[in-house]
Parts: sequence; C-alpha cells; structure tokens
Amino acid sequence: MELERLDFSIEKLGEAHFPSPMKGTRFVEDGDRVVFHSHPEKIKAYLEKGQDPPALELAGPRELLFFDPSRVRCGIVTCGGLCPGLNDVIRAIVLCFHYHYGISPIYGFRYGYEGLNPKFGHRVVELTPEAVDRIHQLGGTMLGSSRGPQPVVTMVDTLEELGINILITIGGDGTLRGAHAIVEEIKKRGKKIAVVGVPKTIDNDISYIERSFGFETAVAEARRVTQSAHTEAVSARGGIGLVKLMGRESGFIAAYTVLADNDVNFCLVPEVPFTLERFLQVLEARMVKRGHAVIVVAEGAGQDLLGQPLERDASGNPKLGDIGTFLRDKIRAHFRERGLRIDLKYIDPSYTIRSGPPNAQDAALCLLLGHHAVHAAMSGRTDMVVGYWKGHFTHVPISLAVSQRKRIDPGGHLWESVLAVTGQPRDMR
Amino acid sequence: MELERLDFSIEKLGEAHFPSPMKGTRFVEDGDRVVFHSHPEKIKAYLEKGQDPPALELAGPRELLFFDPSRVRCGIVTCGGLCPGLNDVIRAIVLCFHYHYGISPIYGFRYGYEGLNPKFGHRVVELTPEAVDRIHQLGGTMLGSSRGPQPVVTMVDTLEELGINILITIGGDGTLRGAHAIVEEIKKRGKKIAVVGVPKTIDNDISYIERSFGFETAVAEARRVTQSAHTEAVSARGGIGLVKLMGRESGFIAAYTVLADNDVNFCLVPEVPFTLERFLQVLEARMVKRGHAVIVVAEGAGQDLLGQPLERDASGNPKLGDIGTFLRDKIRAHFRERGLRIDLKYIDPSYTIRSGPPNAQDAALCLLLGHHAVHAAMSGRTDMVVGYWKGHFTHVPISLAVSQRKRIDPGGHLWESVLAVTGQPRDMR
Amino acid sequence: MELERLDFSIEKLGEAHFPSPMKGTRFVEDGDRVVFHSHPEKIKAYLEKGQDPPALELAGPRELLFFDPSRVRCGIVTCGGLCPGLNDVIRAIVLCFHYHYGISPIYGFRYGYEGLNPKFGHRVVELTPEAVDRIHQLGGTMLGSSRGPQPVVTMVDTLEELGINILITIGGDGTLRGAHAIVEEIKKRGKKIAVVGVPKTIDNDISYIERSFGFETAVAEARRVTQSAHTEAVSARGGIGLVKLMGRESGFIAAYTVLADNDVNFCLVPEVPFTLERFLQVLEARMVKRGHAVIVVAEGAGQDLLGQPLERDASGNPKLGDIGTFLRDKIRAHFRERGLRIDLKYIDPSYTIRSGPPNAQDAALCLLLGHHAVHAAMSGRTDMVVGYWKGHFTHVPISLAVSQRKRIDPGGHLWESVLAVTGQPRDMR
Amino acid sequence: MELERLDFSIEKLGEAHFPSPMKGTRFVEDGDRVVFHSHPEKIKAYLEKGQDPPALELAGPRELLFFDPSRVRCGIVTCGGLCPGLNDVIRAIVLCFHYHYGISPIYGFRYGYEGLNPKFGHRVVELTPEAVDRIHQLGGTMLGSSRGPQPVVTMVDTLEELGINILITIGGDGTLRGAHAIVEEIKKRGKKIAVVGVPKTIDNDISYIERSFGFETAVAEARRVTQSAHTEAVSARGGIGLVKLMGRESGFIAAYTVLADNDVNFCLVPEVPFTLERFLQVLEARMVKRGHAVIVVAEGAGQDLLGQPLERDASGNPKLGDIGTFLRDKIRAHFRERGLRIDLKYIDPSYTIRSGPPNAQDAALCLLLGHHAVHAAMSGRTDMVVGYWKGHFTHVPISLAVSQRKRIDPGGHLWESVLAVTGQPRDMR
Repeated sequence: MELERLDFSIEKLGEAHFPSPMKGTRFVEDGDRVVFHSHPEKIKAYLEKGQDPPALELAGPRELLFFDPSRVRCGIVTCGGLCPGLNDVIRAIVLCFHYHYGISPIYGFRYGYEGLNPKFGHRVVELTPEAVDRIHQLGGTMLGSSRGPQPVVTMVDTLEELGINILITIGGDGTLRGAHAIVEEIKKRGKKIAVVGVPKTIDNDISYIERSFGFETAVAEARRVTQSAHTEAVSARGGIGLVKLMGRESGFIAAYTVLADNDVNFCLVPEVPFTLERFLQVLEARMVKRGHAVIVVAEGAGQDLLGQPLERDASGNPKLGDIGTFLRDKIRAHFRERGLRIDLKYIDPSYTIRSGPPNAQDAALCLLLGHHAVHAAMSGRTDMVVGYWKGHFTHVPISLAVSQRKRIDPGGHLWESVLAVTGQPRDMR
Repeated sequence: MELERLDFSIEKLGEAHFPSPMKGTRFVEDGDRVVFHSHPEKIKAYLEKGQDPPALELAGPRELLFFDPSRVRCGIVTCGGLCPGLNDVIRAIVLCFHYHYGISPIYGFRYGYEGLNPKFGHRVVELTPEAVDRIHQLGGTMLGSSRGPQPVVTMVDTLEELGINILITIGGDGTLRGAHAIVEEIKKRGKKIAVVGVPKTIDNDISYIERSFGFETAVAEARRVTQSAHTEAVSARGGIGLVKLMGRESGFIAAYTVLADNDVNFCLVPEVPFTLERFLQVLEARMVKRGHAVIVVAEGAGQDLLGQPLERDASGNPKLGDIGTFLRDKIRAHFRERGLRIDLKYIDPSYTIRSGPPNAQDAALCLLLGHHAVHAAMSGRTDMVVGYWKGHFTHVPISLAVSQRKRIDPGGHLWESVLAVTGQPRDMR
Repeated sequence: MELERLDFSIEKLGEAHFPSPMKGTRFVEDGDRVVFHSHPEKIKAYLEKGQDPPALELAGPRELLFFDPSRVRCGIVTCGGLCPGLNDVIRAIVLCFHYHYGISPIYGFRYGYEGLNPKFGHRVVELTPEAVDRIHQLGGTMLGSSRGPQPVVTMVDTLEELGINILITIGGDGTLRGAHAIVEEIKKRGKKIAVVGVPKTIDNDISYIERSFGFETAVAEARRVTQSAHTEAVSARGGIGLVKLMGRESGFIAAYTVLADNDVNFCLVPEVPFTLERFLQVLEARMVKRGHAVIVVAEGAGQDLLGQPLERDASGNPKLGDIGTFLRDKIRAHFRERGLRIDLKYIDPSYTIRSGPPNAQDAALCLLLGHHAVHAAMSGRTDMVVGYWKGHFTHVPISLAVSQRKRIDPGGHLWESVLAVTGQPRDMR
Repeated sequence: MELERLDFSIEKLGEAHFPSPMKGTRFVEDGDRVVFHSHPEKIKAYLEKGQDPPALELAGPRELLFFDPSRVRCGIVTCGGLCPGLNDVIRAIVLCFHYHYGISPIYGFRYGYEGLNPKFGHRVVELTPEAVDRIHQLGGTMLGSSRGPQPVVTMVDTLEELGINILITIGGDGTLRGAHAIVEEIKKRGKKIAVVGVPKTIDNDISYIERSFGFETAVAEARRVTQSAHTEAVSARGGIGLVKLMGRESGFIAAYTVLADNDVNFCLVPEVPFTLERFLQVLEARMVKRGHAVIVVAEGAGQDLLGQPLERDASGNPKLGDIGTFLRDKIRAHFRERGLRIDLKYIDPSYTIRSGPPNAQDAALCLLLGHHAVHAAMSGRTDMVVGYWKGHFTHVPISLAVSQRKRIDPGGHLWESVLAVTGQPRDMR
C-alpha cells in the first residue's frame, strides 16, 4: 500500500523572538497540529510504516513574534470576483492589527494586484478602525478588485518602496499563484517580507481547505433562486424550472444548494459527465410521471456538449460556453418535437448570489480567518494560506493549496447525498 | 374646458334583499363614494357645470345581499403569470366566505381558464379553511395558472354544470377581458352569475387602480438586484451594472425600484423613448467623471431600437425583443471602440422577483382585496374588479379598467422624482 | 351642517425671487393643491356654502426660491426614538442640496436638540455626499438622537452663531412642538430662518399625514414576530402566543400587523377599551374550541386595567405600565384557576422592530420626504412639515399636525377589517 | 499518561440479512469509522499502548438490512422546545422511507411523548409524501411537541399495539433519556423495535456531536438582535444595548453570535463566572472611554448572582432566574449612583430565534440527519443517535451522548476567539 506524500510544512522568515503583546492569551504552540485523515486505518498505516501521519499546523496567536510590532507595515489586497465577506476579512485584519498588536493603520491596495502597479495610479488607502467601522454590513470590497496578474518585479518594488513587510492577499487560485510568485521574488532579493493568503473562492474549490468564506451565503442565495424555480414549475402545467449556478470546475454550490432546497430533481455538475440524449430522456420520463421538474446546472457542467474552442479570461480561467441557455433551447426543442407541452422558466441569478454581505456563519468565519492571517504573518510565516480542517484553523502551504483544484468526488458522500435527494440516475451518459 | 367623461357605475344582477349574516358589522352604504380627482379646481369645474365629479363606488360589506348565502357556490380561478400574494388572495376569499357568510367549500379551478374547459381534464379543487391554512406563507398559486383565453361558451357551460353562481377571477388585463366576455355570455343566457375580478398585475398597470398586490414585493426584490449591481459596479474599475426588470408597457417596477434604491444612475422605461447614440454618450460622460454606473432597463423599453417584427404570446401580449442583452452588447462595443476599459455585469433576475410570498404590506392588501371581492359578489355586483383609490377600496367596471393601460406620465411627479434621483438627462433622444 | 374649519395655509419667510438652478424641472405651482376630503358629498357641502373645500398645498420644487443658494447654510437634526429610514432622510437631504441646489456641506447636529445646546459639547458634523454615501444601508441615525427639549433661546443662539438659515428637524410630535417654538423665537428676533420638519413617527400617529416613514418596515418586522408566536402556539397543546408591540396612544402598528399576518386572533389597542373579565372569557371560549390563540397587544392598550399613577418621560409622553406582562400573568392565572392547561409564550420584540434599515417602500418615501423638505425650505416656507395625502406629497402647518394625535377610529374601515380578520368580538367590555 | 476510555460501539437488534432496495448506492461498510481525536499525538498515544484510538461508526445506507422493508412500521415523535428544522427532519425521514425503501406512510405521534400515551387522546397522523410536501418552508413542527416524560410501559404498549418496529425520536437530552428508557423496556420484553434519535438542541450542547440542526439559524436570528442593540447603542448618548439569548447551561449561541456580529463588547455565558462588581467596573470603564456598549448574556449565565432556590421544569431542567432583567436593573442603578447618564435598551428576543424555518445550511443538515436516522434504523441499530463529527455523519450511543452536557471550554479556542473579538477581560471575578 502506497501512502500519500503530503508535506504540510510551513515556511518561516526566521527566528521569532519578539514577545507578543497579547498578554494572557492562550497561545498556540508550534507543534500543535490536526491530523489530515479521518479514518483510523489510514492513520494506522502511516504509523505502522514508522511515518508520522500527515497533519496540518494549527493557526492562532504565537507567544513569540518574528516581527517587532512597532516596525510592522502591512498591506492588504483583494483580488478576483466578489465573494460575500471580503469587507469582513479586511475589517478583521485591521482590527486585529490595531487592538491585538497595536499596529495602525494598515495599507489597502486598490483594485487587486493593479494597486501594486504604479502605472494604474491607484492611491493606497489608510485603513484605521474608523475607516472599517461598518463595512462588514455591506457587500463587495471597499478596496475594489480586479482579475489577473501584474508584473512580479513591479509589485515587489512597490512593497519595498512603501516599506511593507507583511502582505495579506485575499483571493483565489490565481491570486495565490501570484502571491507565491511574489514570495519567490522577495526571496531572490533576500528580503524579510511575509506573504500570507486568505483563501477566497465562492466555489469552495481550494484543496486542503474544507470551508471558504462566502460559500454558505452563496448557497443560501442560490436556494432562494431554486425555490423560485420550484414555485414557477409547480404553478404551471408542464412547468420546468432551469437554474444556472456558479461552479466553473467544481459543482459544490450546485450540490449544496440541492441539499439545502431538496425540491430539485436534477443537479448537473462539471465533475459528472452526461449526454444530452440520456438527460432529455430521463427528464421526459419525469415530466410524464410528475408533471414538473426543477433542474440546477453548474456553469461548468456539460461543456463537452457545446463543442466550442477553449479561450481563457484575464485570470487564466477557461472561458465557458453558456450551458444554461444551451439546455434551455435543447429542452424546449425536445419537447416540441415530442409533442409534449412544457412551460420552461430559465433563471440565471448570476452576480446576485455573490454581492451581498455574508450570513452569520460566514461572518464568523471571515473574522477568524482575518485574525489567523494576522497571527501567522506576525509569527513570520510566509508563502502560506489560512485554512480550515476538521473544526480547526490551519496553515496550508500555498504550493499545496494550488496543486490541484478541489472537486466533487462522484464516488463520495456528497454526491451520494445529491443522488439520494434528487432521485436522478447515477449515470446519465 | 372639456371635462373627462368617466362612468364608474357598477352593474348589479338585481335587487339585494337577503340580510347579511355579518351581524353588527358597519356596512357600507350604496351611495358611498370616493372622488376620483385630487385637485380642487378639477372638482369645482364639474360642479360648476352642474355635473357630479367622477367618483368610485366604495367596496365593503353590504347590509342586504343579492345571493342567499345558503345557495352560493363560488368558483375561483388564477390566471397569467405569477405574482406575490396569489395564495393570500385565494385564502382571504375562502376564509371570508367561510367565516363571514357561512359558505364552504369554495371551488378552485386549476391552471387558469383551462380549468373551466373540460377538455383539459383538470379536476376542481375543494377549498376549505384547512386546505388554505398556511398557503399564504408560500409563493405561487396553489391552483396553478396558465396564460390565454378559452372558449367562452365552454366556460359558461362549465359554470352552469357545476351550479356556480359566483366566479372570482384573479388576473390581469387579459383575464379581465375574459371575465367580461363571460359576463356577456351569462347575460345572453339570462343567468344570475356574478363575475368579480381581483386585479393582478405585477407591473401595476391597470387603470383606475392605484395599487395592485405583489407590486411592492416585486420592487423590494428588484431593489435587492440593483443593490447587487451597484456593489459590483463600485467594486470594479470601470464597473457598470446593468439590470433588466419586468415592465412590458409600463415601467413602474423600474421607476419605483430606482426610488427605493437611489444608487441607480439610469432608468430606461417604455414610456420614455431614447436613442442609443445619446444614451451611450451620456453613459460615457458619467463613466469618465465618476468611474462607475448602474443602469436599470424595463423589458419593454427601447423596443424601437431592436428593429424586429411584432409577434404576440398566448395572452395576446406583444413578444418583446431582449433589450437587456442588446444594451449589454452595445455598451461593451461602444467602450471597446472608444478605447475605454469597462467591466460590465449584466443581471436579469427574471422570475425571482415574482415567485416569493408577499411582503407585509402586500399581504394586507391581498387580504382586503379578497374580502372586498366576496362582499361585492354577495351584493350582486358583476362585471367589475376591486380597486384601490386614495386609501379606499373601490369597485371599478371591468370595461373601464381595461380601457387603457396605466403608464408612467413622463410629465408627472413620479418620473420627475426618477430624474431627480438618477440625475439622468430629461431627454436622451 | 357644520363644516370643519381646517386651515392648511403655509407660512413663508418672504417673497421668492431667486431663480431655481433646477433647469428644466417641472416645477410645482404655488396654487397646486390636493383636496383633503374623499367623499363627494363633503366636498359639495363646502362649495354649496361658497367655501373652498379644505386642501393641502402640494410639495415640490419651486421655480423661484426665497434663498440665494450661494448663501444657504442648512442644519439637520434627528430627535426621539429610532425609526427605520432616518439615515435615508439625512442622505436624501444632503444629496438634494448638493446635486439640485449646489449646496454642500450640510451641518448635522448630534444627539437631537442637545446638539443645538453648546453645554453638551457635541461637535457639528459636516455632511457631504461622501459622508452619507452608504448610510442608507444601515439602521439608526448617523447623527445620534436624544429625547426631550432644550432651551429655545439657546438653540436659536446656536443657529445664529453658525449662520444657519435653514433648519430641518426630523422627529415626531415633541420635536415638531420644539420646532414650532424655535420658529416663534426666530420671529421674535426678526430673523429669516426657515424651519421645516420631516415627520418621524413609527406609530404613524401624526395627523393630516397618511404615511410616515418606517411604519411599513416596523409592521413587516412585527409580522415576523407574530408569525413566530403563531408557530409556537400551534406547535404546543393549548398554545397561546402573546405579543406586545409598539403603539403608545395609537394602535396602528398592531392593527396593520394583524392585517398583514392574518393568523392573529385578538388585537388589543389603546383606542378600543376592554375589560379583563370579558377578554379572558372570550379567550377561554376560543381555546376550548380551537386549542390555540395568538394575541397582539399594543403597549398603550388597557392602561386603565393597570391602576397605576401617571408619570411622564423626557419627551413628555406618559410612562406606560407594562400591559404585556400584566396580561401574561392574568391569562396564566385564569387558566390555572379554571383547571385548563395552556402553554403561553410571551414575546416583546421591543427595539428590534425599529432599528433596522427601511424596506424598499419606506426607502422611496424617505427619499422623497427629504427632497421635498429641501424644496420647501428653499422656497422660504417655514413652520411646516412635509406630509403625504392621497398619493401626493404636501405641506402641513406644524400647528395643525400637532393639534391632535391620529388614532384608529373604532367605527372606521381599518378597525372593521381588523375585526373581520381576527374574528374577535366588536365589544369586549 | 491516562487515556480516555470512550466506547462508541453501537447496539444492533440482530443480524442484517435483507438486501437493501437502494440498488447501485455506494453503501457504507460496517467497519467505516472516523477517528475521534484531531491531534496526532493523542492518536499515537493509543496506538503506542496497543489500543485502537476511539472512533465513531459512520452513518449511511447499509447493503444488508435488519428489517424487511415490506414489514416496517415507523413512528416519529418530536419533543421539547421548537428548533428551526423540525419539519425538515420529519420530511426527510418520510421521503427517505418512501423513495429509498418503499415504505409509506409513516406514523406521526402528536405533541411529543404525550402522543404515545393514550390518555391524552391525540390521534396518530399518517405521513405521506403529500402530507409533508411543503412543510419544510414553515417553522415549528407539524406534529406538535410537548415537554417531559410519559410512563415508559405505556409508551411501549402503544408501540406494540400499533405494530411499530422503528421509533425515531427528535429531541434533546431529556428526549434521548426517554428513548433510552424505551429501549430498556423493549429489551425487557424481548421485542425487536429499533429506537433511533435525531439530536435536537438549539443550544448545540449534546456531547460527541459537533453540530446540531437549527443552531446556525438561531445564531443568525440572534445576530439580527445584537445588531439592533448595537444600532440603538451607537445612536444614543451613553447607549447600552443589553441582549438576553438562549443558553441554559451552555453559552454556544451567545458565543457564536458574538463572533458573527463582532460589534459586541461583553459576552456572559454560564461556563465563565463573573462578579457583578467587577463586571460593572469594567463596563463603566468602557462607557467612559467609548461612550457605548453592547452586552450579550446567555440566560443561564450568572445564576449564582441571583441568589434564588433551585426549581425544575417539566423536562427536568432547572428553572432559571432572569439574569437579563437583573443585569438591566443593576446596570441602571450603578450608573445612576455614579452620576453617569446612560440610555440602556434591553432586548429579550425569546422565542423569535427558534420558531422560523431553517437557513440553507441547517436545511441540508436536517435532510441528511433524517436520511441517516432511517438508514441506521433499517440496519437494525438502536439505542443510538445520529451525530456529526469532523465532516462525517456518525452513530453515537445514547448513553454516551447524554453522559455529560457539551459546554464551552473557557480554556479553548472558541472562548479565546470571543475574548479576542469583544476585548473583554479574561477574568471578571
């Protein structure tokens, strides 16, 4: 039996020897870890081979800091698409620096990595407790955002010019790759600048991280939409509600929305291929039997059916074809051909599920992610991202987090539950 | 000065002589009216000519009924597109018949006027207090709905066969025309069947009626969407949020959403024509000055720009071209040509703004509309619809209600307020 | 027949001769009015006597202004308890002055009339478009508030010292009385300072004004609570839900909540007296028959039952006894005595129904109230409050607005509807 | 080093040999487990001692069933206080039996364990897919609930008379103890009746179970209230918002609400004692420094300060003194004495945080808990409750689940985060 080789070791800028000003706090010890696997047999297998089972370093405040708080200048940047809770994370970082380490203001770069490139002329924003007072009640990001990379050398020049020694990046896969490139350039220059990421992915598709902020809020909003679709479907004769949701390569939003709504009859995700013929056949059978149906399709599902060439956007993500309108038209054509009357309502909620403020659960998550990013940076950790695993906040090396995209396992419990609640066939190929 | 000739007189099936079982109620007297005009000078002009100023009959319970409560069989039908509050109206009618007149059950026709046509085979639903117990907490209509007319003769045959002597139709313009045709056929047959409408128009575009149920709820949902669009717009460099809202011939939803959101910069409605050139020019000026913009467009706006032939749907409404995606593409092309970077987000919330349950205000409105429809029918009124005017529930002849569509007056206070809050030019032609 | 003598004439500071900068606007003409009565007979009676029927002046922008926009200094103050929409009104006033009249900043007095009394040392806040950018998405008032009057001479001294020539007060009955006193003192000094009120009363109890902002939002929140109470009541054997709502002298919130919820069985308001014996008897009958009940009581209802001496708070309002806990205890004691098991849940939502942001409808209302207050003040009107009557924004003299409290008419349509929906006896004395 | 002795072994009624009708499902194997501890060192310690580390059996469908689906009669009962999601759990159970095992109807006992005692005369409800169609959109429980036990012999008699061979109880600590007693009685009689619990605790205080349904929804509602309190506090001079939340012995709702709101300044929970003197001193210091404060107190906090004798309610829970009004009065008296003006607003949201429908996340949890309870029962497991641990649904012996109450660890991460976000002193004794 071959064991997985997972290296969760975290890079540090150097020896931590400044005492933390967080008097009386229960500090996390450097050896504290949470085991990666859940199943006793897997863990035993490592130990039997004389290996430590893979485990993630716990996040939290450290008793000794790498940085002297009186010399810290921190910059924050938010990148990529909006996600509920961005302002909460910004606020948590600013307040943690201020109240726990006596560091204020923090510097906010505007419009993503553009803010680190002088050619765009975006001014740096000073973030004080007053400046972030009530931003958590608003959606979006007060710093603005943008997609795509900027030249690494330029960005590190900016950090040096401003005397920034901690950079916190809030963003997804592409942002983390950018952060890693910045770390490489910093190393090349021999500088002591910590780069810590807060993972932002509304699709919840970053590996080795169980929960990302904004995801639950997005699911809650998506459920509002599928409930609309269900109401429309049952109120019409031959009613079909078709909803397109986010999910480029991973269908987590679609899958969890289906579990949360549980009036959905078909869930189509990128991870589980299907053919149009089979899907239409199964849909027709349901319509004949039950008279209505609700279909949820993740935007990245069924891309092979669209037969179009691959293009990529500014973030390097593949440009997707529109599976929603494609299915809409194909379904209508199919039933017309078959002489069966249907009344299909198509809903694409698009940006509405991501631009509001976070729900209570996500707000708490943002708060703690922000705090833990600050603690990690102050302790001199770098090239890492704050994660969440089995109830604990953790440190995850960026290289591991971006090594592969987290996707639904079609043989795992989540998809099994989706099949159980929709009643759709396991295989629609 | 020529005075308007508005005839608000309501048709009755005959003499009312059964005493109402609503003991102790403060009954409305038959002469009770609310004056149609607001401006003293207009009212004076009528009086000076020796004419009574136009006034609407007040709705409410009458002391004497045309129908003997022990012999009433009532049918209800919901037609056309969904609107928040349909279930509330159904429930209010059922409970009013039951508790105030001792009449139960009521008969529900399924799927709009189809339910009155035996060829569809829809069964009639018995509506008791238990059957409608918590339906008001759900969106949609428990009876189902459909668009379009059915043969009048067939429908009246069905009424006669089932012994229905009160028909309450909940629907819009087309439904009311259908109800009027049913009344004509009933008259031809010399039957005593009351036909009373509850006006349902999410666009709030039925004349002589100030407020229709579901409208405020739709505006509230639409505001959620424009706020999303605003958040997206301000969070991106060159951000433009473009939102398409309902409003085929009347832009009330768009206009009120703009007043309720007041972060919208352009409101395009069917009543106020604009040219693409001028609009793009003004939009560009704003983008250069302020860096972001939010645009709301009613689905019926700018149809002349699309240059497509007129088709009609099952309800007889003209099929509209898609002004939303048209503008989206034109705006993108314009700024690309002009070498200005924008980041446009297009949102079409479609059915989501109409399929939820009503807000508190609409729920109260539905309740009272339902009650007043019952009272009107029991008193023998027919060929009418329950309206709302200057704080009072009223009776409006169907012929008057459908005589013209209510539309935004581009010279009136509402549009003036929209101009004031958006800051858009009065004339974009 | 004695006709009411209602004098709606509005005081002006003097001749208006500065041209408005609102080019192209459709201005309101000074004679524009909306007739006060609805019933044609009432209106006719005036005209037959040769009198003009009472009518309210229409609000809106005027072509000629009393104030030279370049010399305007405006102060705003918010007084009394919170109400959804206070920030919206502040924002609308600031933006209207800025964009429509070119006047910026506006000065905000902090913590109600205290802000006009130097002894409290509250600094004046400069209100620019940036300062009010997103305050409408938050509840409360950014200026703070307080109850009670301050010495009139001191307040007018402050206005003079700061060179304020327009004061806009946002508050209720007490605030308006204070504003009127300020007007008197200003007159005594022969100064040209306009004082215009925006009526704020969550109870919707200011006379000659149909709708006040925040009221609908409060009803919507209150409905959430009565729905909770209903769910609790039906989920328990012998379940009784008892909810106390705001409403010191007028029970409008309770009454409209009952219409909006329509699962409430008893609505107790200050305007309709009841005895404990009769109420408990009727409640018992319902419990025996239906097994559960929901009761809504306005805080000012049944005060005569509490037998306590009258005290007054800082605003001069009588201190009320706690009818909620009184009823809770009396009901429990009654059923215990009668040997009937009940399970009573008492809910007092208190401040939660008033501290959130306004719903869509109220937000639009706040916007237009704010605009109209500015227009009125710029035209030189004073000692008045902006009202709403039969679909039109109006000007109402303060003296008339505070002449009596608006209360539910136990013989009118609203109460009739409450009786119809609850099924409670007309008389519980 | 002493290792914990945790026995997670689950009782079975006998050999499972009926093949499951869930063709094609990915079944859970009987050995599948999730390890209880997270920290690698703890796990290693067991293994080094030659012991298996404690692990919980995984929930999920089994390939072989103990019960022949054609002979199953299942009863469901909901007990204790309301919790968001009760209807969702009922619905999930009914639909899982129906669609996955072909078993319908299920029998619902009304009003908790009373429904199993014939003396109350409650009729059994037949639960079909139609009967539970849209109940998940409503709060409460369609079966009704009650507190307290019923005679075990009588309840098992009822089960036998009705031929029930699966009983699913949805309730908390007391309900589980009742279920365990039923199991004991069943064993005594040598019957093969499975008793499986779905844990319901809005306080999230059942041991060995990380998440219980309704908890997040309650936190979300509680956050609405603390946000109200914050708005009130900052809008008044010397504003203090005091909110009492649920939490009899465990302060999880209070703690998570504080993390989700993060504008709260004091969090008082049963697990962390404080003295009145010290608390008032710290509060005064904050008021002097910041001018406002928000305090959240769990209902079970500070009971030692109230000095009252212990009584118990029908469920056997101690009757608590009212710490909310106690603190309200003490705070007011303290500041009055100190000559400092404050404006304290007290809010007790009580039942409103528990009587609505569940949020999206809780709805998904309810669905899966319901499914897993059915799967467990069909496989012949008994005397157990469905749990959730480290991302997996599990089986937990009732005896272990009720062995102790789960409480906040004042030395653990959760409380540490609460201290970090409130800034309150670690020790207020």
